[in-house]
Amino acid sequence: MTPTDTIPLRVAVLGAGGRMGSEACRAVEEAADLELVARISREDPLEKVAEAGAQVAVDLTVPAVTAENVSWLVDRGIHAVVGTTGWTEQSLAPLRTQLEGAAGVGVLIAPNFALGAVLAMRFAEVAARYYESAEVIEMHHPNKLDAPSGTARHTAAAIGRGRAAAGLGPVPDATEKDPDGARGAVVDGIHVHAVRQRGLVAHEVVQFGGPGEQFQLRHDSFDRASFMPGVLLGVREVAAHPGLTVGLDGYMDLG
Amino acid sequence: MTPTDTIPLRVAVLGAGGRMGSEACRAVEEAADLELVARISREDPLEKVAEAGAQVAVDLTVPAVTAENVSWLVDRGIHAVVGTTGWTEQSLAPLRTQLEGAAGVGVLIAPNFALGAVLAMRFAEVAARYYESAEVIEMHHPNKLDAPSGTARHTAAAIGRGRAAAGLGPVPDATEKDPDGARGAVVDGIHVHAVRQRGLVAHEVVQFGGPGEQFQLRHDSFDRASFMPGVLLGVREVAAHPGLTVGLDGYMDLG
Amino acid sequence: MTPTDTIPLRVAVLGAGGRMGSEACRAVEEAADLELVARISREDPLEKVAEAGAQVAVDLTVPAVTAENVSWLVDRGIHAVVGTTGWTEQSLAPLRTQLEGAAGVGVLIAPNFALGAVLAMRFAEVAARYYESAEVIEMHHPNKLDAPSGTARHTAAAIGRGRAAAGLGPVPDATEKDPDGARGAVVDGIHVHAVRQRGLVAHEVVQFGGPGEQFQLRHDSFDRASFMPGVLLGVREVAAHPGLTVGLDGYMDLG
Amino acid sequence: MTPTDTIPLRVAVLGAGGRMGSEACRAVEEAADLELVARISREDPLEKVAEAGAQVAVDLTVPAVTAENVSWLVDRGIHAVVGTTGWTEQSLAPLRTQLEGAAGVGVLIAPNFALGAVLAMRFAEVAARYYESAEVIEMHHPNKLDAPSGTARHTAAAIGRGRAAAGLGPVPDATEKDPDGARGAVVDGIHVHAVRQRGLVAHEVVQFGGPGEQFQLRHDSFDRASFMPGVLLGVREVAAHPGLTVGLDGYMDLG
Repeated sequence: MTPTDTIPLRVAVLGAGGRMGSEACRAVEEAADLELVARISREDPLEKVAEAGAQVAVDLTVPAVTAENVSWLVDRGIHAVVGTTGWTEQSLAPLRTQLEGAAGVGVLIAPNFALGAVLAMRFAEVAARYYESAEVIEMHHPNKLDAPSGTARHTAAAIGRGRAAAGLGPVPDATEKDPDGARGAVVDGIHVHAVRQRGLVAHEVVQFGGPGEQFQLRHDSFDRASFMPGVLLGVREVAAHPGLTVGLDGYMDLG
Repeated sequence: MTPTDTIPLRVAVLGAGGRMGSEACRAVEEAADLELVARISREDPLEKVAEAGAQVAVDLTVPAVTAENVSWLVDRGIHAVVGTTGWTEQSLAPLRTQLEGAAGVGVLIAPNFALGAVLAMRFAEVAARYYESAEVIEMHHPNKLDAPSGTARHTAAAIGRGRAAAGLGPVPDATEKDPDGARGAVVDGIHVHAVRQRGLVAHEVVQFGGPGEQFQLRHDSFDRASFMPGVLLGVREVAAHPGLTVGLDGYMDLG
Repeated sequence: MTPTDTIPLRVAVLGAGGRMGSEACRAVEEAADLELVARISREDPLEKVAEAGAQVAVDLTVPAVTAENVSWLVDRGIHAVVGTTGWTEQSLAPLRTQLEGAAGVGVLIAPNFALGAVLAMRFAEVAARYYESAEVIEMHHPNKLDAPSGTARHTAAAIGRGRAAAGLGPVPDATEKDPDGARGAVVDGIHVHAVRQRGLVAHEVVQFGGPGEQFQLRHDSFDRASFMPGVLLGVREVAAHPGLTVGLDGYMDLG
Repeated sequence: MTPTDTIPLRVAVLGAGGRMGSEACRAVEEAADLELVARISREDPLEKVAEAGAQVAVDLTVPAVTAENVSWLVDRGIHAVVGTTGWTEQSLAPLRTQLEGAAGVGVLIAPNFALGAVLAMRFAEVAARYYESAEVIEMHHPNKLDAPSGTARHTAAAIGRGRAAAGLGPVPDATEKDPDGARGAVVDGIHVHAVRQRGLVAHEVVQFGGPGEQFQLRHDSFDRASFMPGVLLGVREVAAHPGLTVGLDGYMDLG
């Protein structure tokens, strides 16, 4: 997986001064098959990426500048792995057009670099076809401002798609009396519960149930380090996937 | 725990035709130190309990008749182990008075015979003193009509008592945006979540969190059989506890 | 999933007197799109299957007779769904040959009808490609004679295949001192632990770990009823899969 | 719990240059009711503790010097909270003698400052009385050299004591065939399993089982920070417990 007897891939990190960015620099430096050739912070000119001869750039900046960054990279034939949020169909459209004229250049836009979260979502959609009941419990540190998490919403949507594909109706639920809302939120027909607990980071449990049986998926992120295997996978694979890919699952072998 | 070289204790079961009652009959019959001397169903006269020479009677009938049954038993010096719900301070008061005049007779009123549920509640109250965060997740089959479960409510109350004893304030929770109620019910200041899933029976998870740490209690009831060790504990111990005891924990060594 | 406005599929159950067989009879009877037309016990002649006009037969008999049963069914153009264990490459070979001359007839040999176990194994193989660490914990009732379970062995093998496909080496493990064997069994390079506990039935946990992250799959079988959705899936799909299929996953959409 | 309107307690930390020590300094500094008056590293003379007017000293040094440190502190009437390992009955004996002549001075020797681990052990001993089956699963990072962990061994011993007190015999286990040791280690009659997984830190699961029922305790340490509430509890309580206390549970209200 990490061949060391070949010439290392030359990688730049944009947003290197941020928390995710500095973690990414560290991960690239530690990988024997990659070479960190440029750390670009807010004040640095993008030209340094080209001057350093980067083949792949990781963009971990902010929504306000990411689209401009990626356009600049594609113009210079540099592959881009993008973890910055804020991309919409509106900002993706011109990028698609630009990539049509940039043969061989690959761009990955990944809203979530945690491989486990990507696996959980895909497996949840598949398992959903086979179970009468499904619920989602997400658990985070108590400083989180919104509930439920975006990942839990996406997982509920994936379960909904799986159920629809299998022709399943609503989940069984005889609750008549729930004065305080213990049954939680309902997203795409799926009940979603949010726990907030000191000491936790980001966790998700997906539970499926059928007669005499339960099936569970669980993903725990204890640390920002958990995103790095996904970043490195993107860096290594982006050149082999020309054009635009949205979602890390496009690079994963989930069959 | 189950000495077989002594004369077995003579036990009657009231409500023997019900689901809990028939399970209790089976459990008594299988215990080497107990002898089932009377199975009393709705149509049977209580006199059969006395005629059979029962020393202990297990009442698993219905709220409408349980108080009358117990009064009848105490009058005849027969110890009573009562799992029937519906007892209130109003119905307990005359029983207390009656027991003052019935030296040596013991009555146990146990709202929950599951030893694990009793342990979870007690441990939750103790652990609550030492953790900044606490939440309860109960999970049941989807035919349950109310949410959250009574056990979850009692557990939240126990956690609240533990926190109060330790001088802890409200649990930390920065949630500002929760449009669909994912944070669940709040009982005595504790968030309580109810999951309904085909294939499950009755399950409870209590989660505590502090900096860098999590502590969990979990109890799973897969089957009505899980109540029988509690019933048998009550039967064996009731003679040694004259007067009224409410709650199986009064007979347990939880120190 | 269970259309009721069409003519029901005519189903026979072989081994109807056994525990799995009687459960299967009940499941077929309760399914609106299926009709139970024959319950065949040890003493019944197979002719009753044909006389009843069965289109699909479920074989839940014993290793000694299952090959003969299936051959008889294929000869008469009756599709077979087989849960009996004991099939080997040697007994499958003549069946394959027979099916070549039986156009349109389908046979499913399924060593495990629990959909959750099938999902867990498949997902484990996929997830294994992305994690440095992987272990298996299986948990069963204390009357089980062998450890670890066959399902746990198969899961470890699936993880091993996934790791090999991804070019992963041995799992990291610095253990130098383990005098009592706490690290468990090693199957295809994967540590496997077996728990035996009163009250449990059949449970499997697969745990994957990477830097700052954990991913878990868990399957709980509480009851023989958990095999019935798999049996019914086989019955409904066998006619659409002519020839021999080994493993229920061949009928599932796991993409 | 942390009154701020009183004069802060004056605290010294010995071993302040180590990982636990520097974490303890940070925790004391952040506590409004405590004041860090001395950080003592290997090269510093102990006199600085007395000169700084410390009322309590936390010893997080090394086995070679801890006994000498504590003796010095007791001589000067300074309470000691000790997390250093390596104390034996032989080194405790002279300390006990010394404390007899040092009225009002308290010393706490705590092999484990994780409140959750202390709770798990105590609750395990209590729950063990009520369940036929019990097993322990400990999970750690893959750099750990020994298996099972000391905490798991102590927990198994606690379960053994609980079972003995209740007159319970061996756990039920029909295993006849376990060629690769999947059933794990046996410590005091209890099966103990050790999992090693990248991304984990220190985790323990205790599982109890009875007919139709399961009871679980789980403690997760994600971070060294999880020991600090225990250290602070010791610092705050040591003056109220003159003489020697071994084990943090002596200061906790576990009734």
